[in-house]
Amino acid sequence: MIRSCARIFVSLFVTVSLSAQTFSPGKSLIGFSVENSAKQIALEQRFDSSLKKENLREWMKRMSAKPHHVGSPHGKENADFMLALFKSWGFDARIEQFDVLFPTPKTRRLELLAPEKFTAKLAEPTLKEDSTSNQTSEQLPIYNAFSIDGDVTAPLVYVNYGIPADYEELEKRGIDVRGKIVIARYGGSWRGIKPKVAAERGAIGCLIYSDPRNDGYFQGDVYPKGAWKNEFGAQRGSVVDMPLYPGDPLTPGIGATKDAKRLAIKDAPTLTKIPVMPISYSDALPLLRNLGGAVVPENWRGALPITYHFGGTDATRVHLKLEFNWDIKPAYNVIARMNGAESPDQWIIRGNHHDAWVNGADDPVSGMVALMEEARAVGELAKTGWRPKRTIIYAAWDAEEPGLLGSTEWAEHHQIELRNKAAVYINSDSNGRGFLGIGGSHTLEKYTNELAKDVSDPQTKVSVWQRVRAAQMVNGSANDKKEARERADIRINALGSGSDYTPFLQHLGIASLNIGFGGEDGGGSYHSIYDSFDHYTRFGDPNFDYGVALAKVGGRATLRLANADVLPFEFMNFADTVSNYVGEVTKLADNLREETKLMNQMIADGTLLAAQDPTEKFVMPKAKTEVPFLNFAPLQNALSKLQASAKDYQTAMKNKSPTAQKSLDEILYKTERALTRREGLPRRDWFKHQIYAPGFYTGYGVKTLPSVREAIEQRDWKEASEQILIVAKTIENFAAEIDKAVKLL
Amino acid sequence: MIRSCARIFVSLFVTVSLSAQTFSPGKSLIGFSVENSAKQIALEQRFDSSLKKENLREWMKRMSAKPHHVGSPHGKENADFMLALFKSWGFDARIEQFDVLFPTPKTRRLELLAPEKFTAKLAEPTLKEDSTSNQTSEQLPIYNAFSIDGDVTAPLVYVNYGIPADYEELEKRGIDVRGKIVIARYGGSWRGIKPKVAAERGAIGCLIYSDPRNDGYFQGDVYPKGAWKNEFGAQRGSVVDMPLYPGDPLTPGIGATKDAKRLAIKDAPTLTKIPVMPISYSDALPLLRNLGGAVVPENWRGALPITYHFGGTDATRVHLKLEFNWDIKPAYNVIARMNGAESPDQWIIRGNHHDAWVNGADDPVSGMVALMEEARAVGELAKTGWRPKRTIIYAAWDAEEPGLLGSTEWAEHHQIELRNKAAVYINSDSNGRGFLGIGGSHTLEKYTNELAKDVSDPQTKVSVWQRVRAAQMVNGSANDKKEARERADIRINALGSGSDYTPFLQHLGIASLNIGFGGEDGGGSYHSIYDSFDHYTRFGDPNFDYGVALAKVGGRATLRLANADVLPFEFMNFADTVSNYVGEVTKLADNLREETKLMNQMIADGTLLAAQDPTEKFVMPKAKTEVPFLNFAPLQNALSKLQASAKDYQTAMKNKSPTAQKSLDEILYKTERALTRREGLPRRDWFKHQIYAPGFYTGYGVKTLPSVREAIEQRDWKEASEQILIVAKTIENFAAEIDKAVKLL
Repeated sequence: MIRSCARIFVSLFVTVSLSAQTFSPGKSLIGFSVENSAKQIALEQRFDSSLKKENLREWMKRMSAKPHHVGSPHGKENADFMLALFKSWGFDARIEQFDVLFPTPKTRRLELLAPEKFTAKLAEPTLKEDSTSNQTSEQLPIYNAFSIDGDVTAPLVYVNYGIPADYEELEKRGIDVRGKIVIARYGGSWRGIKPKVAAERGAIGCLIYSDPRNDGYFQGDVYPKGAWKNEFGAQRGSVVDMPLYPGDPLTPGIGATKDAKRLAIKDAPTLTKIPVMPISYSDALPLLRNLGGAVVPENWRGALPITYHFGGTDATRVHLKLEFNWDIKPAYNVIARMNGAESPDQWIIRGNHHDAWVNGADDPVSGMVALMEEARAVGELAKTGWRPKRTIIYAAWDAEEPGLLGSTEWAEHHQIELRNKAAVYINSDSNGRGFLGIGGSHTLEKYTNELAKDVSDPQTKVSVWQRVRAAQMVNGSANDKKEARERADIRINALGSGSDYTPFLQHLGIASLNIGFGGEDGGGSYHSIYDSFDHYTRFGDPNFDYGVALAKVGGRATLRLANADVLPFEFMNFADTVSNYVGEVTKLADNLREETKLMNQMIADGTLLAAQDPTEKFVMPKAKTEVPFLNFAPLQNALSKLQASAKDYQTAMKNKSPTAQKSLDEILYKTERALTRREGLPRRDWFKHQIYAPGFYTGYGVKTLPSVREAIEQRDWKEASEQILIVAKTIENFAAEIDKAVKLL
Repeated sequence: MIRSCARIFVSLFVTVSLSAQTFSPGKSLIGFSVENSAKQIALEQRFDSSLKKENLREWMKRMSAKPHHVGSPHGKENADFMLALFKSWGFDARIEQFDVLFPTPKTRRLELLAPEKFTAKLAEPTLKEDSTSNQTSEQLPIYNAFSIDGDVTAPLVYVNYGIPADYEELEKRGIDVRGKIVIARYGGSWRGIKPKVAAERGAIGCLIYSDPRNDGYFQGDVYPKGAWKNEFGAQRGSVVDMPLYPGDPLTPGIGATKDAKRLAIKDAPTLTKIPVMPISYSDALPLLRNLGGAVVPENWRGALPITYHFGGTDATRVHLKLEFNWDIKPAYNVIARMNGAESPDQWIIRGNHHDAWVNGADDPVSGMVALMEEARAVGELAKTGWRPKRTIIYAAWDAEEPGLLGSTEWAEHHQIELRNKAAVYINSDSNGRGFLGIGGSHTLEKYTNELAKDVSDPQTKVSVWQRVRAAQMVNGSANDKKEARERADIRINALGSGSDYTPFLQHLGIASLNIGFGGEDGGGSYHSIYDSFDHYTRFGDPNFDYGVALAKVGGRATLRLANADVLPFEFMNFADTVSNYVGEVTKLADNLREETKLMNQMIADGTLLAAQDPTEKFVMPKAKTEVPFLNFAPLQNALSKLQASAKDYQTAMKNKSPTAQKSLDEILYKTERALTRREGLPRRDWFKHQIYAPGFYTGYGVKTLPSVREAIEQRDWKEASEQILIVAKTIENFAAEIDKAVKLL
């Protein structure tokens, strides 16, 4: 669904030799004895040598040949196709079906009524350069899934990205969106946040458009000359309230089996409260051009050749009418299993979704075919008699696009078994030319650093680890560069949401990773009819070299977990990152205190007013309550405990060559469970992880230590204090689990 | 010529009451005894009460009624008009004529030859909303003065702002401008830098256009709906190499009198080396749209609805032909004098230019009429029997626009007398609604802070000082806000160039100020035919309230200097600011050392290469010589001496009520002379000031401690070391002058 680019950080003063490391005798992989390291590396060499990029091309061509959204004939064909392949590669494979709510459009009408008449086209034209763009009858039209039905006519207000900070700006200008339709540009948050915040503020409709500043000619040449969105391109996508819970809106917390108890549609809390529709910039231009009112601030302005105004005046009136077919559709998850020879009840799960908005060559097929080739090569190994120690499960999820439905329903349905057996979940989604991006549980950080050093970048022949390090050194922020100089390991991203790791990591507490290449693969095809084989093979990864590289990274990630003597969890890096988070929330409160004090003072003494242009409307904000000093000591003490336990584990592992111990493994992989809390986060109990969550007001964007951070951001000091205690206790519990592992060593 | 906006910094923890201070008994102005402070403040109240905004409106209407560039009939009429007025107000007034080189266009042709044909319009249309826009026969066409003649046909390269850093980017991309025509956008430097750098890099022609990002619809509604440049608006302006020397290109260092010895035009070093022309964004669009090559970096992209490319390929060919009338024209400076009653040989000079590019309602008439009203009110005071202690000279300069010609020739012609008698020069230029901006000699900082507290802002009724402080507190950078919290006085800007203070401050070492309001007066009319009375009275300062405010600030600035018991120089603030400069150049060298080391390492170990997209052209930069540690101790020691002397003067003044002493005054105002050096700056001996200069590669933009700073920037370590010694000696000499003043007290 989304792709994380190379945002992982790098270190300067490490190995200078810039070619991927090859095995040197005596080298030991994390979790492996020296002897087994050698075996594993030999196995990986065999794995690599059987990877064929022709397969990726052929499968992508076939799977993206027609639109294959949830419930489409080609979607089912793809599932069946993959099922047959997995079986042919020796996996125990099956399709697990769930029945999920999936609305599709019946009526879409958007008109500008005044000051001039304009009817939005809401369509992406067929291009001769794109051979699947003419499949009009099979394409899902441009729409946002899980928008409610609606028929509204009202003045229009431009709200920039439509995030809470933007509404503060509007308030300051005396602009009220109550009873109005808002138009927000894509970016700045996950799209579902825009109608959510708009509705909270009283708007009655929401348009979301792709500004050429963010996705269009400002970024690069537009399709078909270049990769970027042309004037008619629009971004479909889900607007379900995923930060509340993902998955089928009608079956929160349980699998959407045929007979599952379902909410009535009217009671489903994750549907939008107002009608929402995405539009292209050619449809947005006549609307925006006709807005009156004051000129917006500089960071609100896009790249259309107009002066951007707030609007909100009665002179500009818009009519939006939306009706949907509220159907239940089958979602087909393809699940392929290879049982472990030694610990069959320890599962390494590797997934990618297979449903698309339209043809979806990039999203998701580029990631899917890499996973398939990885699975095929694992199957090849198995055909020579090799077996993984632990069970490997490959999953092709359906219905990710509308809101992680396939993976979530599967995870919810199998939650008891998964809580017990799932060791790690490894996700991928789209993939393209460029830099390796890794996000995930920081207990897996060291192991991901190690494996990223063993895969060569297809273009430069240095390791993919070194290429990320180089990008960070050359293009990173000052902070990134500093970290690159001071830290041996690349720091992986924390995961928010936006792809299928969410139910595993944040609902079930299964340590997870998200992997993929990107950053040199252009953009602009995302969720449009132009996300096609033609587009992908010109701009995405023309030779599928990065598809093979992803298979190598994913294959290593899976095989090392499957074969390790002891699961390669490590806690020093985790403690280091949590220490940063504790520092951040402390500083957040301190900064907020200082800002509040200064702002209140400037309100009281007239400074704020004196700085305004008296000819422009300005609504003086109310003074805010002062920010108390919060007791962060429990968090800091828990962190000290965590650091000590992590150190103990490191020492214990150093002093003892790891030997396989199922009980140790189980303690290790269940440490992530200790980071969850049955009661979940405040007001969203589905999200149980206490370290990582998607932001309630950012959507995909991660909030770390979410309950504490968001309470401070929302200025709820009581809740912040309560949550500090809860998170501190969580971290202590986690440290106690590490201590158990130490005792076993 | 240019207007400095409110970039002066403010303090939070000073008086909270936000109304302009009124006189309280016992209040003492800097330089005045308590008794004389009271008299002075009473005088200023009389001065204020005679100011009439109707005069400003009437004079602006008349003076901007027709184009009045150098050598134009209306320019001469304006000079004669002002002469008569000054005389009628009781001044001893005369016109001083200089004969200066002033090229005007004979041929202007710009064509796109390939891949499509287009001929640039190079004209701003008449608008019914702008009553003087139809004076086609009298308007100077769109051109850059002091471009050489040329007729060139070549491929076109987009060079962003055309500053040295942009050419480093081009080099990295393997794009060579040799033999090509460059197109740069306005902004990022003074315009004259663009052809200078382009020629240094081997380009054969230069176009400069107004991108709507910087001056057009991105900023606000375009004229006539709003204030900003419409698609046809273009910015005239001089491209003479002012950082080498301003003034008549044929008479450097001497007055351009009728019989002055002149250089041949071909030998004048400040003319451009290649033909240059400014164009509108409608003329630029077809050129930019047709550029090939790679997409430019994000910070190079403007607001035209296109993807910006580097160009430079043979596919895009442009023809530029320019021919000029290389005429000598008369420049009429109007000089009005009121002799001082006690110290007639101590001169306070107050100037603004009167020539414009076209009608020039904003630039320069808005500043000129404020100065005129100020002079009229001073004349009114004199008619009641009051006389200034020192001589006041009001000056209306001609020929500022082509390169400070009128003021420079006058200053050069009278240099001996000025070096001896000129105490302070106070400049203004354009003026409009908004915040007070002050730049100048930091020895005058305290006195400017004091007077800015005594003038009310017309819109908010707080003092203009407090309004600037408020803007800085609310909208300033983190650094500005920090300074605002920690420093009692607003820090005034250092002066670079761009208006008539340059010959006084930087050539003759006369302490100078530049004053003006702005920031709420829109923009976009600058140097176009739309800088008209109609435009100004809609967007600039519709009621001339800020014109009156400028008269109040200028009047106080002039009258306090003219009447003070002791000239209000102060050295603690100066020492504080110089201390910042010393810190900056030290840090500059340190940062450059660190950056060079890191970059060389990244070049050597392959990191830089590994971060590049291998499908895009990349030329590996050469390693640079390492940055040695420079001996900054002489500067630091000189600074300590300065701080001690400044403190001594402060103490001496506190202990002694100031009484008029001509000899003390003379020492005080000649301290600024001690900051100059006869030999001037390296490679530009006209610029003699060692603390402030316009940047050799920034133009208007100031470089403080210029010889040291620019040597470091240019990586000339030998010169940097030499100049550290020279500047240190300069600061010591300055401190020794302060010591002389202390001895007199």
